Amino acid sequence: MIIVLKPDFSESQLQHICEKVQEMGFKYEISRGLKRTLVGVIGEEDRLRNAPLRAIPGVEDVMSILKPFKLASREFKAEDSVFDLGRGVKVGGGNLMLIAGPCAIEGEEILLEIGKAVRAAGANVLRGGAFKPRTSPYSFQGMGEEGLKILRRVGDELKMPVVTEVMDPRQVELVAKYTDIFQIGARNMQNFNLLAEVGKVKQPVLLKRGMSASVEDLLMSAEYILASGNPRVILCERGIRSFDKSTRNLLDLAIIPNAKGLTHLPIIADPSHATGRPDLIPAMSYASIAAGADGVHIEVHSCPEKAMSDGPQALLPPQYAEVVKKMHQLAEVMGKTIPQAV
Amino acid sequence: MIIVLKPDFSESQLQHICEKVQEMGFKYEISRGLKRTLVGVIGEEDRLRNAPLRAIPGVEDVMSILKPFKLASREFKAEDSVFDLGRGVKVGGGNLMLIAGPCAIEGEEILLEIGKAVRAAGANVLRGGAFKPRTSPYSFQGMGEEGLKILRRVGDELKMPVVTEVMDPRQVELVAKYTDIFQIGARNMQNFNLLAEVGKVKQPVLLKRGMSASVEDLLMSAEYILASGNPRVILCERGIRSFDKSTRNLLDLAIIPNAKGLTHLPIIADPSHATGRPDLIPAMSYASIAAGADGVHIEVHSCPEKAMSDGPQALLPPQYAEVVKKMHQLAEVMGKTIPQAV
Amino acid sequence: MIIVLKPDFSESQLQHICEKVQEMGFKYEISRGLKRTLVGVIGEEDRLRNAPLRAIPGVEDVMSILKPFKLASREFKAEDSVFDLGRGVKVGGGNLMLIAGPCAIEGEEILLEIGKAVRAAGANVLRGGAFKPRTSPYSFQGMGEEGLKILRRVGDELKMPVVTEVMDPRQVELVAKYTDIFQIGARNMQNFNLLAEVGKVKQPVLLKRGMSASVEDLLMSAEYILASGNPRVILCERGIRSFDKSTRNLLDLAIIPNAKGLTHLPIIADPSHATGRPDLIPAMSYASIAAGADGVHIEVHSCPEKAMSDGPQALLPPQYAEVVKKMHQLAEVMGKTIPQAV
Amino acid sequence: MIIVLKPDFSESQLQHICEKVQEMGFKYEISRGLKRTLVGVIGEEDRLRNAPLRAIPGVEDVMSILKPFKLASREFKAEDSVFDLGRGVKVGGGNLMLIAGPCAIEGEEILLEIGKAVRAAGANVLRGGAFKPRTSPYSFQGMGEEGLKILRRVGDELKMPVVTEVMDPRQVELVAKYTDIFQIGARNMQNFNLLAEVGKVKQPVLLKRGMSASVEDLLMSAEYILASGNPRVILCERGIRSFDKSTRNLLDLAIIPNAKGLTHLPIIADPSHATGRPDLIPAMSYASIAAGADGVHIEVHSCPEKAMSDGPQALLPPQYAEVVKKMHQLAEVMGKTIPQAV
Repeated sequence: MIIVLKPDFSESQLQHICEKVQEMGFKYEISRGLKRTLVGVIGEEDRLRNAPLRAIPGVEDVMSILKPFKLASREFKAEDSVFDLGRGVKVGGGNLMLIAGPCAIEGEEILLEIGKAVRAAGANVLRGGAFKPRTSPYSFQGMGEEGLKILRRVGDELKMPVVTEVMDPRQVELVAKYTDIFQIGARNMQNFNLLAEVGKVKQPVLLKRGMSASVEDLLMSAEYILASGNPRVILCERGIRSFDKSTRNLLDLAIIPNAKGLTHLPIIADPSHATGRPDLIPAMSYASIAAGADGVHIEVHSCPEKAMSDGPQALLPPQYAEVVKKMHQLAEVMGKTIPQAV
Repeated sequence: MIIVLKPDFSESQLQHICEKVQEMGFKYEISRGLKRTLVGVIGEEDRLRNAPLRAIPGVEDVMSILKPFKLASREFKAEDSVFDLGRGVKVGGGNLMLIAGPCAIEGEEILLEIGKAVRAAGANVLRGGAFKPRTSPYSFQGMGEEGLKILRRVGDELKMPVVTEVMDPRQVELVAKYTDIFQIGARNMQNFNLLAEVGKVKQPVLLKRGMSASVEDLLMSAEYILASGNPRVILCERGIRSFDKSTRNLLDLAIIPNAKGLTHLPIIADPSHATGRPDLIPAMSYASIAAGADGVHIEVHSCPEKAMSDGPQALLPPQYAEVVKKMHQLAEVMGKTIPQAV
Repeated sequence: MIIVLKPDFSESQLQHICEKVQEMGFKYEISRGLKRTLVGVIGEEDRLRNAPLRAIPGVEDVMSILKPFKLASREFKAEDSVFDLGRGVKVGGGNLMLIAGPCAIEGEEILLEIGKAVRAAGANVLRGGAFKPRTSPYSFQGMGEEGLKILRRVGDELKMPVVTEVMDPRQVELVAKYTDIFQIGARNMQNFNLLAEVGKVKQPVLLKRGMSASVEDLLMSAEYILASGNPRVILCERGIRSFDKSTRNLLDLAIIPNAKGLTHLPIIADPSHATGRPDLIPAMSYASIAAGADGVHIEVHSCPEKAMSDGPQALLPPQYAEVVKKMHQLAEVMGKTIPQAV
Repeated sequence: MIIVLKPDFSESQLQHICEKVQEMGFKYEISRGLKRTLVGVIGEEDRLRNAPLRAIPGVEDVMSILKPFKLASREFKAEDSVFDLGRGVKVGGGNLMLIAGPCAIEGEEILLEIGKAVRAAGANVLRGGAFKPRTSPYSFQGMGEEGLKILRRVGDELKMPVVTEVMDPRQVELVAKYTDIFQIGARNMQNFNLLAEVGKVKQPVLLKRGMSASVEDLLMSAEYILASGNPRVILCERGIRSFDKSTRNLLDLAIIPNAKGLTHLPIIADPSHATGRPDLIPAMSYASIAAGADGVHIEVHSCPEKAMSDGPQALLPPQYAEVVKKMHQLAEVMGKTIPQAV
């Protein structure tokens, strides 16, 4: 940490700062510039980060020079993490996961129909929500455990790993009985107790970026899961809030190479929730692959007019098939592989 | 709902839309303008909101003309809600609540010292965190139940109602044993299961606005609590994310008159978390009162240099006393009263 | 336009509204729903847009159903516009323009060196700033006319069309003597008098999106240029302001397919200014092509350590050559062509 | 400036950095921490700011510890600047300017009517736009010089200083003949050539904050005017872009105490443009005064139904009179004076 002194600091303030820093158990180093004097503070980094240096009289600013995440960092693990998702599907290190399926599970027949279609198109993970975070208490909240059972049966029948959202620490044990991959939604990215809970399961966790989370915030939330014992976190960019209301959210694709520089964890993109507009999903799926994403998450519904939740933002199966076809071509240019579920 | 047709819609698409709307059980009305044709859809509003109208071919846009919240709305209840917080303190309808205290409970002695100081200055609710949502898993996470017991004892000794945060649906029962007011933090504003859980307790709930929540999102989260059976929700503006990093967040005071037009629920401001800068807290506290807030939440610590959490953003007790003095004068101009805890 | 009445409107207010609407010369149509009553207003659209309907008593909201741009719209011109930039280079309709060069023109020798390198790599338009918009009055402001002359000579020698920024309506005539393409910077996107002025020249105009401009704002600024007589506007996404300070701005690639749905004008991306980080430029260049951009603008400098302006965000010539190579492969997948300047 | 080295930097990179820094004419100081090594660079600050340090191999980050503005800074001038606006009206140092009037000048009779009303209510500066920056080329663009003449005559008749917007460097001389105060609109805050031009006039300049400008950006734009020779700049907060579309913009009142800590220049607030909603203007005007603003800018129109531009956001004269009455009471509490034009 670097303490920047106010331009009009007094020597007694400087002395007080140095004493405080020593009291807290750190070493320091004074550096006098033409316009500003600095105190470099050296010590064990977690303790440093929490030290209330900014409150000491005479201090103008305190600047951190270290990242607050560790287990998630490239410095901790230099090579890309690769996770096995089941059925021969991998993500990371050049392997792309293509998640597809309806927003909510609405019944076995319809899920099976959609699942068959996306599998045929080339998706390698099936999605479907059993517990739905809805902004209105009066909207459809999901089928619950009944939905989880349907998802499991359809995944088994189609030989596809499945992913579903968990919203409550009390549901983790239940969801763990049925899913291959846990999803933490954007609204729960900083639900720290839920993060700690999925840190205890054996399945990989798909962690969606919060609507106003920085890349550092996202990695800190991943750190919670890693620090709780689960090393298999897959990050997901799903759009942030913006002033332009012509799209539902704003897909921030630069976070993909940005995160890849900071962490070894895979990161995928979700153009469905990011744009909320089927007409923009194909282009943004292609852009995600070209940006280096480790996968793409797309909502597909065979009959959006009837979907109980988020229907309008889903692609139809034939549209999805077109998109996957071009994603394959782009993946090849980018030197990536899309594993097939077996 | 109003369906806007694409400029090049066909008559058969229009007919299909009208059939679909009827199938869903709604009435409709066609309106042909010079440039656009509209279909007004009339029916029971919750079902309308969830109807996948946008997915029907030929539809360009679907515009809602009704607000999605009900129990929280001024249309449901025209006059301001006034809640009794205990010890003679009220909020709403001209009564201001002044919450003060440390970010985290660090021990009984220090909480008592701070509590005495803020009570003497004029605060009428004591705050202190026992469960702390921290972005880093390596930061101090709060004292837990031990902290709750300390808060209860100090509140009783000082004859002040107390408020503390709950982060997990599993903690609600525990926290309910000790607190007078529940706080839901910004990061949990859309933790819908937690909202439903505090909807079942008898204490009022202080609901903080999420970092990128619109006024409508905030009211929908309040609606969850109201719909679960707890009518006593106090809204709190605590700053949203912004591009200007010179303050921690951006205090959006216009949400105060804005929300007051839409809802009967009280709304207070939290300049401590909004600015993260003690030098800006006094001015923003005054502005909050003048904007019509039903209270102000300020962190106070007798020794910020030692605070375990968020210390640098706290005021010292003498600074707080100054701020309360001027808030009293402004409250008088605004025709408001600051009840004293007894 | 649709007028939404307040829930508690009176019949005399409704009558007053209808009279006012008629007075303004519009027709109307009343539509009574279960919860809200609407008045559809029909008339000539520009006059409608400026009519102060919202100020009439009893009005809750006024909703527009038409886009405010015309000449720029797909409804006005359905097929993609294709512009000839000189030297056989085209943009739009499947032709990609690759702009490269230094941020600022610093001298003839260095510009020639960079120009040769980017031409060899495959760039088809050379850039260089002679008038620089700098946030500080104490920063290097550009070489002015001397710089324009250098740019012209280097463009001629290398047989490449050139683009340079104009900041002031008084400079348009001067810049027109030297440049093939005008650039309007992000900070001047709503400098309406400057837009009107470049609407009178014969060269194409590269219009950069403002830092907090919506897609509609961008198209309205293009409309100014088109309405002033210059039909050749090339839009450019260069990043918007965001809360995440790990990149300089936030590249919003969804604006590319979004704009393409609304307008016939070409749109390119500028990952250099959007990210401000050379390590992210390659990935974001690839993503731009895959998103459907009609070109990519990249700053290249042969010696970033010495660049007088924005040096750190430039690629080195060999890095640029790598990026172009992969952009060619991606363009092929996307069915696009990168013309060579001849 | 502080250079932070990459964790895996080599000693030869460090040596190269030190050589480069010396070559550029600066001194340096190496500081080795447990995890990171730093190089402090000491030298003349403008040159430092423009030095391309970030491009040198081995450099991870470059952190600035000095503010980029000078003439505008509190360090340059510690006490508040107070400007005489004519007719006995002052702003700054405890004097509040109350600007009122219509958005656009529409005719002499109507301006006189509004002017009389706002003067009687207590406004001390009259506003009116003759050149209007409109997002659509098809909207009313203002009366031009004819409007300026009307404004001058009405100001003289009512004995009030007047303020009007200038949008183009070519108009500065013309506008200077008629106005007492220049206004630079939000969209032109970084129109640097326009700033330089109003830096040469003798009248004070009301500089509005851009829609996504940080406090530092605003002060840098003020610096352009100051550096061009005009010391009389009045800053104005008028709302920034936000994701919540229930208000036109988002009024950021914390910028008032924030700016006051950094600069000696006065700063006022404009709740009309910030909210775009007459129902929110009173509360936000009161909040502005309580936040420490040096004045409030409010649009007033005697007949908003007929206003040609921005009518719906204007207050009616009797509403304005109410607001001024309470602003007087609040100003008294805040120890401020509202001078009367004489």
